Amino acid sequence: MAKSNVREKLIEAGLENLHRCGFNGCGVQQITETAGVPKGSFYNHFESKEALGAAVVEHYWRERAGSTLPILAETGAPPVDRLRRYFAAMAAKMEKRGYAGGCLIGNLGAELSDQSELVRDGLNVIFARWTEVIESCIRDGQRACEIRADFDASVLASFLISAWEGAILRAKVAKNGAPFDEFYEVVFQKLLLPPSTP
Amino acid sequence: MAKSNVREKLIEAGLENLHRCGFNGCGVQQITETAGVPKGSFYNHFESKEALGAAVVEHYWRERAGSTLPILAETGAPPVDRLRRYFAAMAAKMEKRGYAGGCLIGNLGAELSDQSELVRDGLNVIFARWTEVIESCIRDGQRACEIRADFDASVLASFLISAWEGAILRAKVAKNGAPFDEFYEVVFQKLLLPPSTP
Repeated sequence: MAKSNVREKLIEAGLENLHRCGFNGCGVQQITETAGVPKGSFYNHFESKEALGAAVVEHYWRERAGSTLPILAETGAPPVDRLRRYFAAMAAKMEKRGYAGGCLIGNLGAELSDQSELVRDGLNVIFARWTEVIESCIRDGQRACEIRADFDASVLASFLISAWEGAILRAKVAKNGAPFDEFYEVVFQKLLLPPSTP
Repeated sequence: MAKSNVREKLIEAGLENLHRCGFNGCGVQQITETAGVPKGSFYNHFESKEALGAAVVEHYWRERAGSTLPILAETGAPPVDRLRRYFAAMAAKMEKRGYAGGCLIGNLGAELSDQSELVRDGLNVIFARWTEVIESCIRDGQRACEIRADFDASVLASFLISAWEGAILRAKVAKNGAPFDEFYEVVFQKLLLPPSTP
């Protein structure tokens, strides 16, 4: 098996196990078994389980970003419509998983931010990138007079990400999509609208 | 040592360890050592570590509720001012901890919702109670024309809890209070205000 192939298998298996069991809820052996590679091969590819955790976070972000972020950049569509479809696409994925797993970024942020500087640094980079793309769509919406102009787009983007992370957490606890419905109702029917909108 | 005293010590020690290390990041032995009780005594008081987890969640809620929720019920004060001071009191606690730990309810929701029905049930009860007290303060604010009347108070209360849980998570990752500042700015300077407010 090519070396890079083993590394990829470990990252995929790590993603699956960390998403299902959390970082401290699964061991290296469980991950190598899922990957179908010898346990001994793990440390040829990763210095530590923590290093795998950081690689999994980056991989998860690229996958998530690759599959949903392009919606935000569909410049032909109205900006608020793009935002709405973007959040709905993430919610649909969670519904498909029976509201299990939640957001790996949020899960590992809660579990590891006091234990791993490496993972925490990776998460901060992701939150910054995530804020930038939402902010850009908000600016488009402000230019199109779809979103109230008196928002600092960066503050609003970061707030929406926090609110969304909280909604995902609540949906994982409740095992239903009510927190997403509340998010849509408050954000899209009230928060974003310019004051003059009836 | 009185039996009830040992149980209390285990819950206190469980709270401390679960808040610092997560549920899967600490063992029963670590908890009994913190409590200063013999390891063997654990199962005289709790059927399982999971049962301790559920008791810790309930204890954490009572403690948190006891120390901050009364702010929401200060009927002499303006409702929005009560809400603002309530969130600020929680943020101040987190700042004092150096943005470590975060919210135990959110942490265990992320870590255990797919692993423990017992803990998940306890968290759902807490989220329902929490929503009720915030909702009641929002209704006061709507009656006082401080909060826009066209909100469903229950939906708004639940949304605020999600957004706050997300802000706590983000603060834990960032190790600063920026997510709380964003929450105050968006919620108190925009979201709650009646449309006619200048």
